[in-house]
Amino acid sequence: MKARCTECGTRYSMDSIRYECRCGGLLELVQDFRGVDAEQLKREFAKRLGERHTPLASGVWRYKELIAPELPLEALVTKGEGNTGLYSPPAVTSYAGCRRLWLKALGENPSGSFKDHGMTAAVSHGRFLGFRRFACSSTGNTSSSLAMYAALMGGEAHVYVPEGTVSENKVLQTLAYGAVVHRFAGTYDDGIRFLREQAGELGLYVGNSVNPFRIEGQKSIIYETAQDLSWQLPDWIVLPGGALSNVSALGKGLRDLYELGFIPRLPRVAVVQAEGASPFHRMMEAGAAELVPEPAPSTRASALNIGHPPSWRKAALVLQETKGVTVAVTDEDILNAKAVVDASGVGCEPASAAAVAGLRRLVSHGIIDREETAVCLLTGHLLKDTDAVGAYHLGGGPEALYANKMNRVRL
Amino acid sequence: MKARCTECGTRYSMDSIRYECRCGGLLELVQDFRGVDAEQLKREFAKRLGERHTPLASGVWRYKELIAPELPLEALVTKGEGNTGLYSPPAVTSYAGCRRLWLKALGENPSGSFKDHGMTAAVSHGRFLGFRRFACSSTGNTSSSLAMYAALMGGEAHVYVPEGTVSENKVLQTLAYGAVVHRFAGTYDDGIRFLREQAGELGLYVGNSVNPFRIEGQKSIIYETAQDLSWQLPDWIVLPGGALSNVSALGKGLRDLYELGFIPRLPRVAVVQAEGASPFHRMMEAGAAELVPEPAPSTRASALNIGHPPSWRKAALVLQETKGVTVAVTDEDILNAKAVVDASGVGCEPASAAAVAGLRRLVSHGIIDREETAVCLLTGHLLKDTDAVGAYHLGGGPEALYANKMNRVRL
Repeated sequence: MKARCTECGTRYSMDSIRYECRCGGLLELVQDFRGVDAEQLKREFAKRLGERHTPLASGVWRYKELIAPELPLEALVTKGEGNTGLYSPPAVTSYAGCRRLWLKALGENPSGSFKDHGMTAAVSHGRFLGFRRFACSSTGNTSSSLAMYAALMGGEAHVYVPEGTVSENKVLQTLAYGAVVHRFAGTYDDGIRFLREQAGELGLYVGNSVNPFRIEGQKSIIYETAQDLSWQLPDWIVLPGGALSNVSALGKGLRDLYELGFIPRLPRVAVVQAEGASPFHRMMEAGAAELVPEPAPSTRASALNIGHPPSWRKAALVLQETKGVTVAVTDEDILNAKAVVDASGVGCEPASAAAVAGLRRLVSHGIIDREETAVCLLTGHLLKDTDAVGAYHLGGGPEALYANKMNRVRL
Repeated sequence: MKARCTECGTRYSMDSIRYECRCGGLLELVQDFRGVDAEQLKREFAKRLGERHTPLASGVWRYKELIAPELPLEALVTKGEGNTGLYSPPAVTSYAGCRRLWLKALGENPSGSFKDHGMTAAVSHGRFLGFRRFACSSTGNTSSSLAMYAALMGGEAHVYVPEGTVSENKVLQTLAYGAVVHRFAGTYDDGIRFLREQAGELGLYVGNSVNPFRIEGQKSIIYETAQDLSWQLPDWIVLPGGALSNVSALGKGLRDLYELGFIPRLPRVAVVQAEGASPFHRMMEAGAAELVPEPAPSTRASALNIGHPPSWRKAALVLQETKGVTVAVTDEDILNAKAVVDASGVGCEPASAAAVAGLRRLVSHGIIDREETAVCLLTGHLLKDTDAVGAYHLGGGPEALYANKMNRVRL
């Protein structure tokens, strides 16, 4: 297993874990796809849809040849993650305004979010190297996923979660899985900085997306979406941007599929940020070469509350390669879009709905054409943040355009 | 489609909806399994595991021939429910004390609970009959499932949820799916009584388990478990008992599998109630012929807060047929068992953990032998009741034997 610095190209063996290059750049796994026969793999992937008794039943490990061919099956820590639904509710399509829309409901993963795709890969790799102690900084979804997989393999999870700005359901979920939950006054970014400095010494395997195995696992989200659509992706993939690891993983997955000949062309990528935490969008809009961190990120879509996204360089490259765009939306836009997605029977957490709100804005501004098609990645389950549901429907004020009220009756 | 009264045997056509016999007994669907070739169906069911693009991809509709052969595929309202994991975490097996234990994680269903298995069948039938308005009384899981499927088909959900004794996450989830949520001072049982009297007049299709289609859909839980175990069920199936519809569905499913020759013998069934809401256990223990309702049911496992379980007669019959047993466990037992299940990386809501607590008690009393094997049905997702997680871990007192604490740090 080898990795390469995405900045300077230096190569490293991944027989031990390493999160960044000596130059400070992020690493990415180097896959050797020589000799891969795409048509034969397509048939193999189709056959594995019927699998139930091996790790290949997972929507991540189904694609093992393209993710971590070197890891032995026995090392894998898996819950059959992936295999989530792809829905086309008419009300959401019409709200977004494009011709055809699919929602990829990643909240149907075992821990309730898309993080499971990457985390099964990272924890499996850590276990393979002999680690028993795992760590992350998190706005909640990463921590519950890491804690779940660490528990499943009988290991230990140490998670660093900011006070206050995180959905309590996620923190409690993490605590229930038995993790050591370290809460601190500060932001996600402070947690990342702390782990960068301390993890090695503390003997912790870091499960954040600076870990290149997270990215390899997360690639499976676009593999699965493409397979589900018979390897014909729509014009656009729209997704929320927080730490931006999902953008980086999406880009790597798309590149794989295109280079291997699984898909005939690259779709365009649209990254949606919340206005209160949109340093990446501001950078792209300004055509700047460097990201200026947002020191006090603030959005009700708590999973997007990240001011210094570690993967911004990788994400910028993905947008360049796919003729992608960025957009920022208000919390009101996000929560109204969420109400529409929820009431369609699909449901999601606030950050996920940013994708739909962003798509709507891009269509209304003519950047995405009404005749085009799109997939929105819904990153987390409705149950991940019920406080947001209560705040919107029971006390949301005039901006809560689709508020549903509670009805008190006597029977 | 025909139904039969489980009390007096009177038959009814189900071309219109009916929930009970003129004699007051509950109805059950009459299936005509003549001409069914079990071996051929097994092959068909195995083949469908690879399905992704039709309703037969669902872990309910995979078994359509045995559930609702008359419903056209186009009528089905489905989210690919079922297809949930079966886990054997060593820590939970050792806690329960039997030789081999599987946990069926029904909380991995789209709305987060086992109710989706039955609700896809009921809402599909209602839609087939031309209904657009659906209703239920609920401790929370039924209501969120009904609301989700009603939303998915573009219909309306009217749910009756007691004040106070229900997990708020579930109520908010139901509200988010767009249901009209009627909250009232009273119990689940009052809601059922109200709907029995009013639903017909109000034009509502009732999705509670008095509806025999719910039971047919729920049968798929044991079908899927059996298929996953290569049609070799363990010695015991252990499940929590609230409204007891899951017991009645389990029994009907087991009977189907045994009569059709899918399984060589019937496993024994153990029903676990919470001590504060255990009228069924008390009846069985006393060898009484009639259930005496509990007027003030009270347990922290809110999904079990039911004093007058509608399906008690059907459940008693299931226990008779399977040489089954009942047991009651305290809230402390339930919450400690939940902590063990959660920390294993599987996770569940409190009511689900009653199954594990009950199994442990039955093993320790020698009613289930240490050399026997069991499946526990975990009915709901960990995220369904995070208040219970907070109460246990952050303020549970000395009875919370496995409490995990939050750690406040400065980075």
